[in-house]
Formats: sequence, structure tokens, C-alpha cells
Amino acid sequence: MRLSILRRAYGSLRVHPGSRGSGVAHRCYPAGATGCRLILRPASGSSSGGTSPRGAVHLGEKLRRDDGLDSDSSLKNVVQSTKEAMVALQRENPSIQPLLAIIQAGEDDSLLEINKKMAGKIGLNITQLCLAEQCSEDEIIEEVLKLNEDPRVHGVYLHLPAASLTSRVLDALKPEKDIDGITDLNMGRLVRGDLSKGFVSPMARAVLDLLEKHDDILEGKTVLLVGGEGPFASALQCLMEKSGMAAVKINWSSTVLKQQVCFVCVMQADAVVLLGSGQMDVPSTWFRPEAAVIRCEPDEHAAETPSKSELWSLTAAYRTQNVVRSCSRWIQEQQYRPWRLRNLKLQPLTPVPSDIEISRAQMPKPVDQLAQEVGLLPEELEAYGRNKAKVQLSLLDRLHAEPDGKYVLVAGITPTPLGEGKSTVTIGLVQALTAHLKLNSFACLRQPSQGPTFGVKGGAAGGGYAQVIPMEEFNLHLTGDIHAITAANNLVAAAIDARMLHEATQSDKALFHRLVPSVNGVRRFSPIQISRLRRLGINSTDPASLTPQEVSTFVRLDLDPSKITWQRVLDTNDRFLRKITIGQASTEKGHIRETGFDIAVASEIMAILALADSLEDMRNRLARMVVGTSRSGQPVTTEDLGVSGALAVLMKDAIKPTLMQTLEGTPVFVHAGPFANIAHGNSSVLADKLALKLVGQDGFVVTEAGFGADIGMEKFFNIKCRASGLRPNVVVLVATVRALKMHGGGPNVSAGAPLPKEYIDENLGLVAGGCHSNLRKQIQIAGLFGIPVVVGLNVFKTDTQAEIDLVCQIAKECGASDAVPCHHWAQGGRGSLELAHAVNEAASRPSNFQFLYDREMPIAEKIRTIAQRVYGADDIELSPEAEAKIDYYNQQGYGALPICMAKTHLSLSHMPDKKGAPTGFVLPIREVRASVGAGFIYPLVGTMSTMPGLPTRPCFYDIDLDPVTEEITGLF
Amino acid sequence: MRLSILRRAYGSLRVHPGSRGSGVAHRCYPAGATGCRLILRPASGSSSGGTSPRGAVHLGEKLRRDDGLDSDSSLKNVVQSTKEAMVALQRENPSIQPLLAIIQAGEDDSLLEINKKMAGKIGLNITQLCLAEQCSEDEIIEEVLKLNEDPRVHGVYLHLPAASLTSRVLDALKPEKDIDGITDLNMGRLVRGDLSKGFVSPMARAVLDLLEKHDDILEGKTVLLVGGEGPFASALQCLMEKSGMAAVKINWSSTVLKQQVCFVCVMQADAVVLLGSGQMDVPSTWFRPEAAVIRCEPDEHAAETPSKSELWSLTAAYRTQNVVRSCSRWIQEQQYRPWRLRNLKLQPLTPVPSDIEISRAQMPKPVDQLAQEVGLLPEELEAYGRNKAKVQLSLLDRLHAEPDGKYVLVAGITPTPLGEGKSTVTIGLVQALTAHLKLNSFACLRQPSQGPTFGVKGGAAGGGYAQVIPMEEFNLHLTGDIHAITAANNLVAAAIDARMLHEATQSDKALFHRLVPSVNGVRRFSPIQISRLRRLGINSTDPASLTPQEVSTFVRLDLDPSKITWQRVLDTNDRFLRKITIGQASTEKGHIRETGFDIAVASEIMAILALADSLEDMRNRLARMVVGTSRSGQPVTTEDLGVSGALAVLMKDAIKPTLMQTLEGTPVFVHAGPFANIAHGNSSVLADKLALKLVGQDGFVVTEAGFGADIGMEKFFNIKCRASGLRPNVVVLVATVRALKMHGGGPNVSAGAPLPKEYIDENLGLVAGGCHSNLRKQIQIAGLFGIPVVVGLNVFKTDTQAEIDLVCQIAKECGASDAVPCHHWAQGGRGSLELAHAVNEAASRPSNFQFLYDREMPIAEKIRTIAQRVYGADDIELSPEAEAKIDYYNQQGYGALPICMAKTHLSLSHMPDKKGAPTGFVLPIREVRASVGAGFIYPLVGTMSTMPGLPTRPCFYDIDLDPVTEEITGLF
Repeated sequence: MRLSILRRAYGSLRVHPGSRGSGVAHRCYPAGATGCRLILRPASGSSSGGTSPRGAVHLGEKLRRDDGLDSDSSLKNVVQSTKEAMVALQRENPSIQPLLAIIQAGEDDSLLEINKKMAGKIGLNITQLCLAEQCSEDEIIEEVLKLNEDPRVHGVYLHLPAASLTSRVLDALKPEKDIDGITDLNMGRLVRGDLSKGFVSPMARAVLDLLEKHDDILEGKTVLLVGGEGPFASALQCLMEKSGMAAVKINWSSTVLKQQVCFVCVMQADAVVLLGSGQMDVPSTWFRPEAAVIRCEPDEHAAETPSKSELWSLTAAYRTQNVVRSCSRWIQEQQYRPWRLRNLKLQPLTPVPSDIEISRAQMPKPVDQLAQEVGLLPEELEAYGRNKAKVQLSLLDRLHAEPDGKYVLVAGITPTPLGEGKSTVTIGLVQALTAHLKLNSFACLRQPSQGPTFGVKGGAAGGGYAQVIPMEEFNLHLTGDIHAITAANNLVAAAIDARMLHEATQSDKALFHRLVPSVNGVRRFSPIQISRLRRLGINSTDPASLTPQEVSTFVRLDLDPSKITWQRVLDTNDRFLRKITIGQASTEKGHIRETGFDIAVASEIMAILALADSLEDMRNRLARMVVGTSRSGQPVTTEDLGVSGALAVLMKDAIKPTLMQTLEGTPVFVHAGPFANIAHGNSSVLADKLALKLVGQDGFVVTEAGFGADIGMEKFFNIKCRASGLRPNVVVLVATVRALKMHGGGPNVSAGAPLPKEYIDENLGLVAGGCHSNLRKQIQIAGLFGIPVVVGLNVFKTDTQAEIDLVCQIAKECGASDAVPCHHWAQGGRGSLELAHAVNEAASRPSNFQFLYDREMPIAEKIRTIAQRVYGADDIELSPEAEAKIDYYNQQGYGALPICMAKTHLSLSHMPDKKGAPTGFVLPIREVRASVGAGFIYPLVGTMSTMPGLPTRPCFYDIDLDPVTEEITGLF
Repeated sequence: MRLSILRRAYGSLRVHPGSRGSGVAHRCYPAGATGCRLILRPASGSSSGGTSPRGAVHLGEKLRRDDGLDSDSSLKNVVQSTKEAMVALQRENPSIQPLLAIIQAGEDDSLLEINKKMAGKIGLNITQLCLAEQCSEDEIIEEVLKLNEDPRVHGVYLHLPAASLTSRVLDALKPEKDIDGITDLNMGRLVRGDLSKGFVSPMARAVLDLLEKHDDILEGKTVLLVGGEGPFASALQCLMEKSGMAAVKINWSSTVLKQQVCFVCVMQADAVVLLGSGQMDVPSTWFRPEAAVIRCEPDEHAAETPSKSELWSLTAAYRTQNVVRSCSRWIQEQQYRPWRLRNLKLQPLTPVPSDIEISRAQMPKPVDQLAQEVGLLPEELEAYGRNKAKVQLSLLDRLHAEPDGKYVLVAGITPTPLGEGKSTVTIGLVQALTAHLKLNSFACLRQPSQGPTFGVKGGAAGGGYAQVIPMEEFNLHLTGDIHAITAANNLVAAAIDARMLHEATQSDKALFHRLVPSVNGVRRFSPIQISRLRRLGINSTDPASLTPQEVSTFVRLDLDPSKITWQRVLDTNDRFLRKITIGQASTEKGHIRETGFDIAVASEIMAILALADSLEDMRNRLARMVVGTSRSGQPVTTEDLGVSGALAVLMKDAIKPTLMQTLEGTPVFVHAGPFANIAHGNSSVLADKLALKLVGQDGFVVTEAGFGADIGMEKFFNIKCRASGLRPNVVVLVATVRALKMHGGGPNVSAGAPLPKEYIDENLGLVAGGCHSNLRKQIQIAGLFGIPVVVGLNVFKTDTQAEIDLVCQIAKECGASDAVPCHHWAQGGRGSLELAHAVNEAASRPSNFQFLYDREMPIAEKIRTIAQRVYGADDIELSPEAEAKIDYYNQQGYGALPICMAKTHLSLSHMPDKKGAPTGFVLPIREVRASVGAGFIYPLVGTMSTMPGLPTRPCFYDIDLDPVTEEITGLF
């Protein structure tokens, strides 16, 4: 049945709620709280004959109209356009199905028939929650909150009595899902006229459509809204005013009516909308003879009304339109979004204050705000306090199709023992790119070990006006990743020694009965044990069917105590744990053993964290770790120990990178920090991957490699890039005049001792010497990989202009695509603008990345390639132990792993005191080890300490806490 | 100069923006974006003579009026009432000063004169931020965000051009501080009529007052709002309608005017408000001859207008009123708030699924929502992901004046090695109290060590339907507190050994030069070093003035390697570290030493965390810790090592308790978990104190003591309550039929072995035996302290009704104030309703708490008192070592510390196999040690293992992670 709005011209209009109106009154089911009944009177005149084009209705989104006179053309149009939107949406996002959730009190479904039917027409899914008729506020809120959190639901329609729509209920509903526009925020948006985010009441739009059908041109028309006080009346009034109508809302009370009668009598409105419930007598003098009268009232007897009416259908159609729109917005939210980054202003002081003073003087943005600015969704964030948050890896799926940004590696020339400021250059560069050039960028940094923070090095959050803030949170605990590594690493160690003890003191049968215990009379292998059986070539999964020999093979790892390679770790500089004897308590029955502790970041688990590219990959790598060798020479893994699942559980949060910010409010990922000598010394693959998606195609991800380019950069290319599949665009090579002078023949530089005067006064000869030896060589190394190099000279206040110019000039002569001075320490991002421009320029050039060696090359050949082509050695010399180990690894199938050289960082050679670019040496390989889980072979060149010590006066002497302000002093 | 609204009756009204109106037009400075100029025309008639009482204006808060005719009486009233509110506010909160922040573009202050003057009248502080005339959106937002976060600012007034008030700016402003009511949320609230939270535009209220002065009775009157489209016009319209007026808003465009002319011509409004800017010709036929005309337009030439006008003054007055109101609301927010807890529904299944399945099936409330429900402020919360958050200690200051709730301790009878379920009883009890009896309650639990989670015990988050969720987050890492303890503890250990090495290998002078290094040519002692000098009796603070003897005394701690009591710790069950030899690497030059690792929770730092009652107290306790003895017999502290500040820094976040929730959505604090044998085994003082404030006077805090009542409860009373000053109201004594049967003479119960049939079949004799021995004794022990005891029988499915009844009956005979069965494991809170009622009843009885001993009693006497009165021993027997240690501690001034007995928990005696209530034994005290920082002496009765081991098949065999769903399996 098709309904049309008819004109009327007779006396008073009286309707009792729930009873049928006189004549051909039609009722329909209400749309929830703002439920209406549409009462249409018989026409006394003819229906509107307007065929002229309609006036503009400005409502943020233009209401759709047709220009025919068909009485339900408006409905047809809404349905049609919503259908089209739906089809388009599903064509582009086949896996997404817009879903409207309806919460109703009671189980009377009839009210919803028309909504369901409309949804069916559009192809929209509906879910319906029937609460008890007398449900409590809390029960409603509970359901609302669940729907808020459910990503499958795009719209929530509260089909509830008005009394149930309390402030608490409305406040609970997420405005993004409030497709009926009943929340305060959506109402406020409508009033202000900003409809880009909110939703407008579908029924208000439907009423407007009906009025328009009655009278083509709404602009300039007058409407009387009688009896309405709620948001629906206000929304309607607002829409009418925005369409150019004059809408008068008057209360329905006899007092008012009497007083206003002289006003309303002469008003002669073009239309009357009755909004209140109850009995209302509206004098016919209130409106013009041709006026349309629409009656909306809260539903009370909905069940008895027919299921079709135009108002109701239109309302349902606009509701579905809102749901589809909400879903489109949600999809839009899921897409890559351009950044809207609010930078933090820097006002650098002279002289530059201490790092912690600078850090504390800047108030960081709340991390959830930073996250939003760089296009992260709230549900992708796990806040750890106000200033840092872990980011979920699901981001990689969400932005899967988005092209990566540009990938910049910061490496350095061979440093002095004081370090040459790669971290500050990295941070200064992203500050310049993002805050000053307005190019999206992310810095990806390593999490520092807490050991050196309290030892001799201090913090690692950058320095001066190029820092990550708050620096104390960066340096202490962070989000607990290193603690998780410590726990995981030491669980493996405890498992090894306990297992050896148990194997030594129990029979095969006793071991078997304990390892495969009878639970309710049944013995079963666990999944981890079944994996071990498979590796042992035992196919049975029934414990009872194993032969005694198989039982013995299964229960005995038979670890050779002298061949356990797994060390315990602590994140403390504790030199006395370098070599220890354990198991000396009587409870361990004489099973003593020599072993040691490493610093936690030297754990293979840290290297795995840095190289894993998914949770599953990490889980698999953790299971592959080799902890030692059995007496028969077989590698024993963490999976053999049964501990691999527990390791994954301990590391499940650590795998998510931590978001922080620089002093200028630009984003930083802090994640992983493997030791740069026995491991690869680069931050995590996952942080880089997440950042490359977030910055977008034209953005930059700047990551840092530990030590000099001969070590950190080589490992970055050959190990990290091999694991990640990522290809860098530019290398920034950090140099200092100080280090160059040292390479040019300057005197020894050591921590704690005052700098010799050569380093304070201008000395162009030493600078030139350093440039022509070490700098030239490091530029050439980058060239081996086909990547353009920009030299960034980290300027110290003692550097002279002539020295700076000289470095830049020679660097360019040596093949750098550019060479510029950097003043980030004193000036922040503004001081790194030249570098940012140079990097941006270099990144636009084609690069021609290639690995230095093929992974299938024999192990010794790979080592030789690195030694000769990177270090400049004549050859390598393998010790007999090293040769034997290489044979063993080949035999075990580890021959194709890449190489992670463990060499001093203080020289291109293995001799720390050989500066410049040494030649004519043979690199001695003392020993070769494997990190099978991390996935590399590491040859040892000389002795590598994996556990630092504390000096006589460690940093901690100056570190304290003000118990009142909670401010930390003495960190630097 | 006093202004009045005058009536006019002549032709058209034309005003050019910024030019003076004709006649006696007055201008005033606009109120920001909705800035207005009020143009008042000379009267052609007389001023309103209405003296009748005014009609009601319903606006949530009634507008204040007087009934005189004084033209600025309205202003006077607003000022007066605001002044009074201000005085009342400051009388009750003398430290709080309401503050209005004004952000303006440009430095023209004249506009703000009237605001400042008004603020001066009221006594309100103003702060004014002048941005550049052409400031960017980002700059405005930055300032807005800062003001949002500044707790001193109670209102923000954006005195900016309308074009600057973009969606982003408005969205940035916190609605709680939007005292001009311009944000969408406040506008929506006004439209909906809920003014309990938002703010209404001060100028809209001012306009309404002026209209009312013109015409006493607003109800039924009609107003024409011409030319306004913004939120201000809508707010005004809304207020007018709520006052019973009919307000028509019409656009100012010639098209509209032509079309609406026939409507408006005959309207004859009682008042006209002109809202648009620019030139508007309003025909005189639009309003009645006596109509008031008010013109509001955006300010453009404000500087030239006089600084006084009634509209402007009234606006400023309402603005200050809003600020004072905002401040009052803020203060109200700071007060104790009744809880509005939304419980999570439980639908227990039979048979009861595994703990992790139950935990995972329940979706916890987001922790910020839980926090809000229990009266925490957003700024008191530091979220750690979605499900847990640290709570700041500042809460204690905020709720300082609030009375504490009731304090309930859950203790147990002497347990079997399997444990009797104190944690589940605790959780079940709070679920029953809060979710079912609607009595506020908090459970305060210990954080479990991760070691046993992967060893033999499994998780510790409760069990069945009485759990803390998500249980895996409870059991793993939590918020990193134990990791922080590990780091702090091991930093002390590293400092000890490094210091001994440095002292052994350096001269006094070398040590002094390193410890007090020359920085820029100056040597200075650090504050920590000055503390040490004071303790050594050296008064000089000038390094150069120390005598060689003083230098030697200062630089040499001279630790006796054989008397170092400090152990390293790990949160791993690693038995091979119980006794080790360290320093065996060549770098340590032969300084080897025997030592060991404890489990992290056995660290004294954990005991300190649990007993500290403020950050400062923790800092001081950490500095007092004694790590060993010098060769001359003096105690050496962490402060002597210079590490005390660093420890406080490492522990600064750990001191904040972690908020989580039970399966039924009731709040839980998890904080600290000191070992229950060598330490006091109770959760933290601070968590209890915070919770006691939060639950309110009639609420309950339920906390748990480790082991049986003879150990955990005794230490709770004598150590924890002594430290905290808190007094408990009720003890819940947890018993199980299983443990009672054991005490009644049942066979041995041990972990891993199947239970003998006595424990599965009904055996009333064994039950009665256990009740009359152990249960009776434990009830008596609680009686020693004067606290009523409720026995909670943790029912297992094998318990028969007769057994249950028997326990309850005998318990009451033995002096329990009540004894009830608990079914929380199978039923959740509903299963603990009887216990909740019994506890509520017992808490209403007077208790008469007393300590067992005076702390000034001699050490041996205190030990004897505990042994005799609590354990039932005849006497104690001190070993010679113990006697010597007691003498030493007395001499060092530690004699008044309370006693923390280190005794087996498996018997009331020192003999684990003596069940029931042993008598006739002498308690041997093998050794006496001191935790000086934690503040107790701990006598060792027998050998206490402080490092658990791993069994042959540890829990970790079953623990794994699904890499796709990230769900954990195998935790229990």
C-alpha cells in the first residue's frame, strides 16, 4: 500500500494515543525512543503539483531527492542509493558485512518487521538483542558496551522506551555507532552543522522528506512543532532551519497555549508537526488550510498498527543508510590515513642543559593522541602509562596493501670509545624530516640495556635537543621486554640443569612415568613431546607402545655438561657472574658445573625478538634454539626440553614494538636491542615494518645499526635485510671531527681521561688523514651494497668551520652523494635540516641493493668475503676449533646461515688500536658458534666480553628520586 | 553607568558592524566567538512595570532573579550568588583557587577588561594566553590541550575569531572546562536538557535575563532570532524554548526574507534578537511596538566600544559563575564517590571447566571503566594495556579525610602441601560482597612469583569461578614489579662485588680520586656520599679537607667477604643457583666467593615494597638495607654503596598497586608478594590503604596472609599492622575437610600422589579430630589478638553434608563467631553468600585488637612469646650462633624490630610431620638474621629453602601459545 501526504482543512485534530485516528489515519511502528505515529488526513484539496527543481537543502550531506511526483520516490531513492553504496562497499571489501544491532526490551518482534524488511532490501545484516521488558539500566549498558567493542557491529539502534534512554545509557553508547543520532555529541554536531562525523536522526530526515513532498520548496516555509521537548524535536527543528524553514517549537501545556494563542493564531504555518504524547487539541486557526499535519508520538501500542507507512519506511531506510555510512566510515578508518601531527615546539637554550633537564622541560603528548595522529587505531594500542604504548602487529594486516615508505639506515665510521652520536643523529633527522620538512618519519631505535644505565654509559635516549622523551622511561624498564627476555632465557637454563639432574638420578622408567604422567589412568604425550618423538623418528603417539629403547631415547636428552652453550642472563653489569660454578648446594648432589651469566641483551632470545617477523615466526625460532650437544653429538633444542611454548608465552607481549616520541613530538618505535658484537645489533624487523606502513609511500623510516658501518651496517644488510626482505634506500654515515682526527693519527682517546688538545684545537691535517682513511673506506663499504651514502657530520662545539668544510668536501670526493654538518644536539630538528634535505634527495635516486654474499656459499668463504671486502684483510686464518665447528655446523645443516662477525668495533681490523683503514693483516677466527634460533653463525675474532662490569664510581652515585615530586635526578 | 533595556517603536533598524548605532546605542566587548554587541534604542514608551512574581524558568538550574525592578538587579544577583558560592568553596577548600584561562589571538587586552573586572569582584583568578593574531589551528590546540591537563585550570574561554573555532579546536577542548558551552557535547546536553554535567553559554543566559527584565513573564512570549546559524543561536533558542517561549530562528538572506515575509510580518514578536553580522534591515512590522530588540554580532571593532554594558557584564558574570561551578564540580569529583559498579554476570557450568577456560570466557571490563566505577579519577590511573592499571598513591591525599572501610584478613588452618584455597576464598568473598550483597569490597592479593607458574604450582589467580581475570596477565609479568625488584636487588649485588674488587686493587688515593672525580677541575661529594660522611662522623663536605685517615675511612667499606648476607635473585625456579661460586673469570683476579641466588620474591626489597607506606618511606627503607658487615664488624648499607637512590628509581613504579578485577567484575588490587617464610608473606600496606579509602566506611577490604594462621596471620598482626597502623575487624579462617582429616590422623598427603581413600570417603572421626586439634588452636590464636573469627569451609565435591555440618558445629563450639561452607569454586560469589553475610555480621561486632608483644621486649623474649603462645611450644632453644647474632643486633640498635619467624608452614611446630596441635616441644632457633630495611628480625627454625626447583615434568610442558589467536593454553 502506498501512502501519500494529503492536505486537510478542518477543525481540531484530536488523537488518543493508541486509538485509531478518524478517517484514513494510518499508523506505523515507531522508530525507538523517538517513535512516531504518522497520522494522515483525507485531502480536501488536490495533492501538490510542484514539478519545479527543488531548493537546496544544506545538511552537510545533501538529502537525495528525485524530481518526479511519485509519492514514494523519496523512499525509492534512499533505498536505491543505499543499495548502491552497499554494493560498492562490498565490492571493495568483500569480507565486510555491515551490521545493525538492535537492543529492545521485550520480545515483541513485530515492531522491527519494517526495519528487517528494509535491511533485507539493502542486504544489511541485523542482530537483535531482546532484553527483559523491565530490564535495568545496567543491563542495557552492559549490552551497549559489548556492542561498542564489537568491531563487527556498525550501528546500534536502541529500540527502548524513552524512560530507558537515561543519561548513563546515552553516555555509554559510542557516538560512532549511534546511527539514530541520539547521543549528546551527535546532537551537538548537528546543531553546529558539522555532519562529517556524526549521524542525524533518521526519523527527522524522513519527516523532512515528507514535508518536501508536500511542498517542493521548503526554504522560507514555516512549521509549527507542537509538544516536543526531546532531542528528536530539536534535531527536526535544526534540520528544518538548515533547510531554510522557520520552525517554531512550542510546549504543549494549556498555560502556554493560552498565552501563545495570539501568536500562533496568526501564524498560519505551512505545516504542523505534533510531537508530544497524550491528547492535543490543535486549533485549526493555527495553520493554513493547505498545511500538512504530521503527528509523531512515542509508541505505546505499536503492535496494533500496520507494518507499513511511508514515514516508518523512510525512517528505516535512512537508518540503514546510516549503518552503511557508519560501516564505510569504519572502513575508511581502517585505511591508511595521512598524518595530522602536532609538533612540540622547541626553544633551545644556550648553554645546552643536561639531557634530563631538557627531557623534563618538554611535556610529551599523551601517547594515545600521538598514535591517533600517525594513523593508529585505538584498538591497536596497549598503553603503558601516559607516555608509551605497545602497538599490535595486526596493523601489518590492516595496512597490508599500503606501499612502504623509504628506508634509511644510520651507520657510523669507526668510533672512538666515547661513541660518535648515531642515536642523536637518528633522532635529529626524524625531528627535521617530520617537524620541519613535514615529511612523515619514524625513528626505530634499540631498547637500551639497563646495565650500562647504572654503570658507565648512562642513558641511550639520544642527547641534547635530539632525544626520545621521557628519557627516564626510555632508559628504565620501558615496557618490560628485556625483563621478559631475562625470564625466558633463565627458564631455559633452569630447565637444562634440572633435566640433567633428573636424568642422572632416575631410571628410564621413572623418567618416563614422570614425563608422561597418568592422568585419570591415562598417559598421553603433550604436543611438545610429540614434536620431539617425530624428530627422533618415533612415529607412535601411544605411550604404551614405545619400546624400552624408544623410551630411553625419548626421556634422555643426554646433554653433555661440557658442551652446554646456553648461559644465564641478567640486565645488570655484574662482572662477577662472568664465570661461575653452580650446583654446589647439597640438594644438587654434586652435579656442579662451570657456566656464566651474560648481559640480558646478549641472549639469543633478544636476537630472535629483533629478527622475528610474526608471532608464529618467533614461536618457531624460540623452539629451534640449540642449548647444547648430547653426548652422542646431537644438538639439543628448547623444544627437546619442552620449554618452547612457555618461552613464546613469556615473550608474547615483548614482540609488540613500543611507541614513544621525540622532543619535537614525532613518533619513535623502541624495540629490541641485541648485542652488536655476538649478535647483529639492530633494532627489530617488526618495528621497521610497522613504521614503513605508517609513514606511507613518501615517508621515511630511519633506523640505526650498532657500532661502525663495517659491523652494524654489514649485519644490517646481510642478516636483518635478508630476514625481513626489506631494502634500504639511503645510508647516513655519521662522522665526527674527533673520530676523524683519531683515524688521521691523533693521540689515544679513552673514556674518563681528558681529551688531548689535538681534539680541541683546529687540526686540518689530522681531519684530512681520517677522511682519506676510515671515512673513505666506510663509504666504500656502503657502496658494496649499492646504496647511496649521505655523510652526516655530528658537529661538536670545538669543531671549526674549516674542519667542517674539509670533511664535507672530502666525503663528497670519496663518493658520498652528499655530506652535511648536523647541529641537532644544540638545535634539535632545525639543526638537522640540511641532513634531512640531503637524505630526501638521496632517497629519490635509484639504488641497486645487493647482498655481499650468497647464503649458500661455504661458511669459511662467507667469512673470508666479509674479512676481505669489508674489513680490508688479506685473508682469514681459522683455528682448528673453528674449522671443526664449521664442519659440525655443515653436518647439522646450518651451513646456509648468514654470518654475524664478533669483532672489535674500535678498528676495521681485529686490532682495536689500528685506526684509519688498516691493510695487510690476516683476520684470525678463534672460534665459531651458532645461534640457530636467531639464524646466524657467529665467528669470534678475539675475546668478546658479554658481561660488562661496574666502574669504581658507577653512574648510580648520582641517580636519585625526589620522593615528593617523583622526579629523577642524575640520569644522563 | 547603569543600562536598561528600553522599548522602541519605529521603522527599520540598520546597524553597520563596528559603527556606532544612532541615539544612545551602547556597545560592549563581546564574549568570544559568540561575541555580541548590544544595541539599545531610546524608549518610546515607559519601561516595563511588571512587579508580579516571575514564571518558572526550567533550565536544570533555576536562573536567579530578584523581584525588584532595579535594572541591573539580575547582574547583582548573579554576582552575589557567585561570590557566595566562591566564599563557600574557599571556606571548605582553602587551598583551591578557581582559575579561568583565556586564550586570545593578539594582545589587545581591552576586550577582556570587563571579564577581569568581574573576576576581580568575585575573587576569581584569570590567566590569559595571547597567541599571535594569525595563530594556526595547531597552536591553539596545543594551548587547549595543555589547559585540559592542567588541574589548576577550571575553565577555558576561547576568545578567538569564529573562524578559529574549527571542529578540531572544539573537539580538543575538554567539555568539563568548556565554561562557554561551545563544544558539541555541551550543546547536545543542553538540547537534551541534561545540565547536570555541561555548561550553558553565559551570553545566552545573559540575553534571557535581559529579555526577562523587559518582560517579567517569559513563558508564552515569542521571539524572533534573525540571522544566527551557530551554536550560540541554537543555545539561545533552546533556553528560550525551555523558558516556555516560542523562538523562531530565521536565516538572513533576501530570498528567505521575501518568502517568509508574510509569515514574519504578522508575527509581531515580543522581542527580536539579531544574531548575524553584516547589514540587516529588519522591517518594523516584524515586531510589536513594545518589542525589545537586541543585536548580537561578532566583534570586529571591539576596541572602540565602551567597556561597560549590561549584556556584557551579565555575560562575564555568568562566565565566572560557570568557572566557580566547574571548580565546585572538580572538587566534587575529588571527593569520595559512591560506587556505580557494573557486575559481570556469571553462568557457572558443570562440570567446572579449567581455570583458563573460565577466565577466557569472561570479557573483563576495560580497566579505566572499572576504575571510574570505584571512584578513581582518570589521572590517578596508569593503564598497562586494557585489563590492568597502576593506581597512583596521590589517592591517599585526595581521600585523606574519608573514613576507612572494614578490614578483613583471610588466614588458614595448617595446610596440606596442596594448599587449602585461601586465595579462592578471598576472591569468592569479595565477589559475594560486591556483586551479590552490593557492599563495596576490594580484594588485596599478592603478586605470584613467575617461578612456580612454570614449575609445579601453576597460576595463583584463584580458581574455578573465583578468579582474577585475565588470569594469564595476573600470572605473567603483570606490571613488572617483580622484574623491578630483580633489577634492584641484583644491582646491589653487582655493586657489592665490584666494590670489593676495586677496594682490593686500588690505593686509598686512587679510590678517592675515582669516587670523587674532578669535574671541570672541581671535586665534589654527591649527596649520597655526604650521607655516608655524616654516618662516619666526618663533618667536612670539602673533599680537599679530609685527612688521609678520613679518606681511607670514607673510601673503604672494607666488606668482609665471608659476612655478606646479600644474595642475588631471579624469578625462576633454578635450584642450581642455590649455592654457587662467583668471580672465576680471569678478569676478577681470583676474588672468588661463595654465594647464591634466591627466588626474587624472597628479596628484602619485596618485603620493603610490601611494608612501605609512601615513596619516601620506601626510599628510606631501601637506603637502610644492610648487605653485610665490615671487617671491623660494622653493618654496611646500600647507602654506603651509593646505590640507594638508584634503587628508589628502579622501584618508583613498582610502589603503585595494580588494579584488576574478579570474574564478576569486582575490583582487586594485586601488589607485592613477599616470601611467607623468611619474610612476612602479606600483600602490601599501600594496596590495603588505598582500598580502605575506596570502599568507603561501610565497605570491606579483604586481604590474605600466606600459610597457616600461626605464620601468616601472626606476621600480619605483629609486623604488617604494626607498620601500617591499620586494625583488622574480622579474620576469616579457611579450612578444608581434607586438611582437617589430615590433622585428625589421616594418612600423608603429598603433591603428585593420588589422595588416599580416607580423603575421598566420609570419615567423621578424622574430621572431628582435626577440628578439635588444629582448627581449635588456630581459632584460639586469632583470639589472642582480640579479633572475631569466621571459619570458611572451602567445600570440595567429595565432602559430605555430615562432614560439612560437623566442621561448622565444632568451629562454633571452639569460639568462632560463625562457621559456614563456601561454594565459590563451583558457583562464584553466589556460592560465598553465607560467608559474606557472616563476615558482614562479625564486622559489626566490637573488636579489641592487641599486639602479641611489645616491640621493646628483648629479642629472645619476643621469639619465646610467639613460640609459646602461638605455636604451643614449651620453650625455645637458641643456638650459640643465634645468641651471638641477637647480641650483635641489640648492639647495632635493631633490638626493637618485630620478629618474623621462618618456620615450616606444614605444622604448628617446627616438625612438618607433626599435624594437629602438637605440644610438649622446644622450638630450636638455629640462626637469627635481620632485614633492617624491611624492619624485622627473622629467626630461622630449621632450613628454609629460598630457591625452589623444577620437577621432572614442570608445568611448562603444557604451556603454549596459539600464534594466530594469541591464546595461551596450559596455564592453570
